[in-house]
Amino acid sequence: MSEKNLQILLASRPKGEVTPANFRLVETAIPEIGPGEVLVRNHFLSLDPYMRGRMDDAKSYAASQPLDEVMIGGTAGEVIESRNPKFAVGDKVIGMFGWQLYGKTDGSAIRKVDATHVPLSAWLGAAGMPGITAWYGLNRIIAPKEGETVVVSAASGAVGSVVGQLAKRKGCRVVGVAGGAQKCAIVVDEYGFDACVDYKAGQIYADLRAATPDGIDGYFDNVGGETLDAVLRRMNAFGRIAICGLISGYDGQAMPLQNFRSVLVNRLRIEGFIVSEHMELWPDALRELVGLVGARELKYRETIAQGLESAPEAFIGLLKGRNVGKQLVRLV
Amino acid sequence: MSEKNLQILLASRPKGEVTPANFRLVETAIPEIGPGEVLVRNHFLSLDPYMRGRMDDAKSYAASQPLDEVMIGGTAGEVIESRNPKFAVGDKVIGMFGWQLYGKTDGSAIRKVDATHVPLSAWLGAAGMPGITAWYGLNRIIAPKEGETVVVSAASGAVGSVVGQLAKRKGCRVVGVAGGAQKCAIVVDEYGFDACVDYKAGQIYADLRAATPDGIDGYFDNVGGETLDAVLRRMNAFGRIAICGLISGYDGQAMPLQNFRSVLVNRLRIEGFIVSEHMELWPDALRELVGLVGARELKYRETIAQGLESAPEAFIGLLKGRNVGKQLVRLV
Repeated sequence: MSEKNLQILLASRPKGEVTPANFRLVETAIPEIGPGEVLVRNHFLSLDPYMRGRMDDAKSYAASQPLDEVMIGGTAGEVIESRNPKFAVGDKVIGMFGWQLYGKTDGSAIRKVDATHVPLSAWLGAAGMPGITAWYGLNRIIAPKEGETVVVSAASGAVGSVVGQLAKRKGCRVVGVAGGAQKCAIVVDEYGFDACVDYKAGQIYADLRAATPDGIDGYFDNVGGETLDAVLRRMNAFGRIAICGLISGYDGQAMPLQNFRSVLVNRLRIEGFIVSEHMELWPDALRELVGLVGARELKYRETIAQGLESAPEAFIGLLKGRNVGKQLVRLV
Repeated sequence: MSEKNLQILLASRPKGEVTPANFRLVETAIPEIGPGEVLVRNHFLSLDPYMRGRMDDAKSYAASQPLDEVMIGGTAGEVIESRNPKFAVGDKVIGMFGWQLYGKTDGSAIRKVDATHVPLSAWLGAAGMPGITAWYGLNRIIAPKEGETVVVSAASGAVGSVVGQLAKRKGCRVVGVAGGAQKCAIVVDEYGFDACVDYKAGQIYADLRAATPDGIDGYFDNVGGETLDAVLRRMNAFGRIAICGLISGYDGQAMPLQNFRSVLVNRLRIEGFIVSEHMELWPDALRELVGLVGARELKYRETIAQGLESAPEAFIGLLKGRNVGKQLVRLV
């Protein structure tokens, strides 16, 4: 156990791409707890694309991350001190302590999890927020029927891989879009997608058309940009598009859409969503996801960076698609 | 009564803008009716933007209009001969006889209307398909709450003017977008909108922002293009956008959207629709619309061209926004 807490703060807002200079590592005292409080040692930090939006001060769905404060983020850890009867030392908990080694709470900000069958890290991935994100967009927005074709971008990622596997379980034809042959191979061979389009091969529309001979009924979008544009051209009548992320435009790139006409021609429904606004569905979603992960029926991969100091570079890598599966930082 | 039937056929498909050369006027015999059939003299032809899409052979929601056949379209007329017990000479009827003076049917293709309180022409406008289009998009997609701000483009048109008046009746702030000071004056003074933005004034975003101090909760889109793009920047969280028409791109113009990011940031729902696919709602919608038109509580304007020969030019004018309100062709 370190004698000090380490934290990473937002030092400056990115102008375009995120750089390491946007962050600052500081050493602080380990928090002391009072009556009713709990001290948690974080084991894993979750890195997620939504963090990029919070680094800007532009209007976004989440409050802007204040400068000189600890970067926000999901964490999984262990209770190491407790003056709260609901938590005992050794309890595994999920929280939002952000980019730091320790976190203190009155208990309201953490949730106990059972790491017996589902590893602690998975509670930040397939059995956590990314999994629930996949579950919500697929079930509540796309709501695919058996035999329909569902496409998901960032298909090898923490969200995309779950979307595809859940859609396969519903009897859909599932096509992923991912960057590079290695990711596409994982998407097909490991996650069991029917096909995967490598957008880096430079002919996304032609490849997508070949992979979706019956058109597309549902699209789970994590990237926006030209992938979305290509998908719009392949959509079938009454198709549904869940907009979960627009990572291709996170650094302020223009993301002009050419094929919006398809929305009228094909009577599409497009819906943007943020899973944290649908907490009422988390218990249902988690029950299913935890069951599947525990039974090894839902597969996932993790890319794990070591040490809090590595978080900025790991996060930059995530935005560039260097990770495969869930990007985590191990803090112990 | 003419001794001959006149028809306008689709002679060729437009390359870009529609021109009079795309149509051909022909003279044919007045149809003879057999047992069970009805002969209708059309009094009004309805001209509507959707016809532009049918002139192309590109994939669209409606079957492409075949070459050398009568242009399709809604009509209002009078039964002048009947061998069907359900229809008597003198009955006023709505049908889809297209761009011609006469139409024959076994009765299945026409609907009797009462022109006592609602003029015959209005059954093609506020109390007809355009009115129902407005009703559906507003009530079923936008579903505005009292106090919300609703924006509608092509606000002086047959659909837009009804959208705005229905939204006002629901207690919304209603802002129109229209082309030119004259149309904007009608939208505000006659239809009772709270404000109207003249997109031809060349500063649509600034003017829209000024007219929507609390942002936009619902948008009924008839035009697409830069109006839609400006609206996307003003949308509030959980806003709804009904895509009813994209007239700014009907001639094949590129219609790139820059502000799609708003869909995620504001968790928007966008839905394209075609009212003819929701026939189950027509009785409810018509009951309300016919009641309001009959009571003079729903106002409308008509631009009426005289004679079938004028239909091509009137249609071209409609696509260019030269009409005010419902564009009709009087055939008697």
